[in-house]
Amino acid sequence: MTERERPMGPLPPGSTIGILGGGQLGRMLSLAAARLGLKCHIYDPAPAPPAAQVAAAHTAASYDDAEALLQFAWSVDAVTFEFENVPASTGAALAANAPVRPGPQAFAIAQDRVEEKAFLNGIGIGTAPWASVETETDLAAALAKTGAPGVLKTRRFGYDGKGQSRISDAGDLARAWEEIGGASAILEGFVAFQDEISVIAARGLDGQVVAYDPGRNEHRDGILHRTTVPAPVPRALTQQAVLMAGQILNALDYVGVIGVEFFCVGRDLLVNEIAPRVHNSGHWTQDACLIDQFEQHIRAVAGWPLGDGSRHSDAVMENLIGAEAEDWLRLSGEGQALHLYGKKEARAGRKMGHVTRLSPRG
Amino acid sequence: MTERERPMGPLPPGSTIGILGGGQLGRMLSLAAARLGLKCHIYDPAPAPPAAQVAAAHTAASYDDAEALLQFAWSVDAVTFEFENVPASTGAALAANAPVRPGPQAFAIAQDRVEEKAFLNGIGIGTAPWASVETETDLAAALAKTGAPGVLKTRRFGYDGKGQSRISDAGDLARAWEEIGGASAILEGFVAFQDEISVIAARGLDGQVVAYDPGRNEHRDGILHRTTVPAPVPRALTQQAVLMAGQILNALDYVGVIGVEFFCVGRDLLVNEIAPRVHNSGHWTQDACLIDQFEQHIRAVAGWPLGDGSRHSDAVMENLIGAEAEDWLRLSGEGQALHLYGKKEARAGRKMGHVTRLSPRG
Repeated sequence: MTERERPMGPLPPGSTIGILGGGQLGRMLSLAAARLGLKCHIYDPAPAPPAAQVAAAHTAASYDDAEALLQFAWSVDAVTFEFENVPASTGAALAANAPVRPGPQAFAIAQDRVEEKAFLNGIGIGTAPWASVETETDLAAALAKTGAPGVLKTRRFGYDGKGQSRISDAGDLARAWEEIGGASAILEGFVAFQDEISVIAARGLDGQVVAYDPGRNEHRDGILHRTTVPAPVPRALTQQAVLMAGQILNALDYVGVIGVEFFCVGRDLLVNEIAPRVHNSGHWTQDACLIDQFEQHIRAVAGWPLGDGSRHSDAVMENLIGAEAEDWLRLSGEGQALHLYGKKEARAGRKMGHVTRLSPRG
Repeated sequence: MTERERPMGPLPPGSTIGILGGGQLGRMLSLAAARLGLKCHIYDPAPAPPAAQVAAAHTAASYDDAEALLQFAWSVDAVTFEFENVPASTGAALAANAPVRPGPQAFAIAQDRVEEKAFLNGIGIGTAPWASVETETDLAAALAKTGAPGVLKTRRFGYDGKGQSRISDAGDLARAWEEIGGASAILEGFVAFQDEISVIAARGLDGQVVAYDPGRNEHRDGILHRTTVPAPVPRALTQQAVLMAGQILNALDYVGVIGVEFFCVGRDLLVNEIAPRVHNSGHWTQDACLIDQFEQHIRAVAGWPLGDGSRHSDAVMENLIGAEAEDWLRLSGEGQALHLYGKKEARAGRKMGHVTRLSPRG
């Protein structure tokens, strides 16, 4: 049975959503799906990933196990992902046997920083100055194009600051090239931004777009530390950010939730990064919105109409990284909602949970 | 290892809460526990109860299977219940081997309408006029005490209008006695109330009490249809209701969430019923409070401090009974949160889900 032969229309309650990846995002997607009476089947090589604790089924197999992927695709009614670094062959194997949402185009772009920047610039959206670096000999010309300082990043499979190296001047190039492992790379010029904001937006199977109010993000050690909603930046910027997110969703013919990170540079916005999935900077929606980003994504994947994206409260979300989650008792105190991900080991740099504090809408 | 030998203090994330009963309440308790990084183990005789879809473990065994109960008690860090009709022997078997919260006293009272009324009157809380009926020959004297009209109810194991029969006058007594099966009963006099309201309140292991704002309940065919929060009744009544709920919790040395239903009779409150568990009339807290009744119950059971019970929005919750849930697509529309319980068969009278509509706090 191919996608075309499956029943049309929204998936009814009782249907099963397949999720590749069983980390905290897969877990929170499963919890949201359960609220709607939908089941989840987690595909993750780990024997006991966090999402499996709250899902109806779990397949523990590698992402290149063709037989397991086929079985998985046939056992579910639609497939989605908690991470963007899905191997293209995995995505193709699934898409041949089940509706896959979002589709492969978004992954091809989000997996490759050069493709991503070219796509964004191609639809008229600004980014940091950038240059593609295929070999060490490209480095000098790239730096001339972007200007110093900058950051050399692997084109593919980087996240949370991994696979990146800072460059102050031309003397850093050789070291940086070695640090990132000499893989195909992008050199990005430094942007003197005042704030980073992000938009969590969704597009339904019917093309409807719903966006949450933008939040301001603060990072520590390259990992998101805090998101504040509403973002304390001029309204003209947040409105522009929402419109750009919609433009990106439509250009990609996207289905599901996307996270778009922006740099605020004076009165301009540059897109830093797009994530074709639910996004850490949207976790505040769990506590401050009637329909959160996880339910919104599940609705889109299941072909349901999107829910209301409005916010009933102002919110501040803070990540709990590594040992910070050991303070769970204090963090569960008055006025804040604690979310923990069911991970056993609190390794340094590992996202263990988050807390959200609400205040009346300003 | 008995309870005394288990580690003291709040159960850390990663601990397992055992829940007797895998229906929608067990399911929503599991979802709430997952948010806090706690696992759930469902004990329910059914092979695939709704809660098992979202819990880390499920034991399918009968409530009188001593060996299975023992294994279950030893495999979890605390035990709680989604329903009050736990056989006393089951509760005792569990309590000998694990912390059981709430404890047996609350069940002894909530399982028996005569014990319940006697307890309430004993702490100075009013109820409908009532009389105990052990045999058919008690009926006439009972009716003389309560006055007609009234309702004859089985003392034990009734819910949602089952095991009840209305009495208009003495001529109905024989038929009513037959209808309820001739079991030990209570005759309750009719109360001409203006409104029914309920309080969802919680008491922590440390004795802290937190209550949600009372809601007004409307029933259809003996089943809760709608809860409106805040209850549109005089503030003196809602405040009194909260104080009475606290009095009940303290008198029972209770740990967990309780639901207390009140009749508003002029400026007086009579308690209709207490439910020693999370309660249908508290489902609105999922969408209108930072910490909902399910998380509050899990916090109490795990020995955590209770969360904030304040409400960020006004709410109206409506149950979806039987075929009403087939309208899920429309019910998932703008401005409302849809909750479905993962039940396959939409039998008449079966609770399939609920919807909550929010509005800004008035």
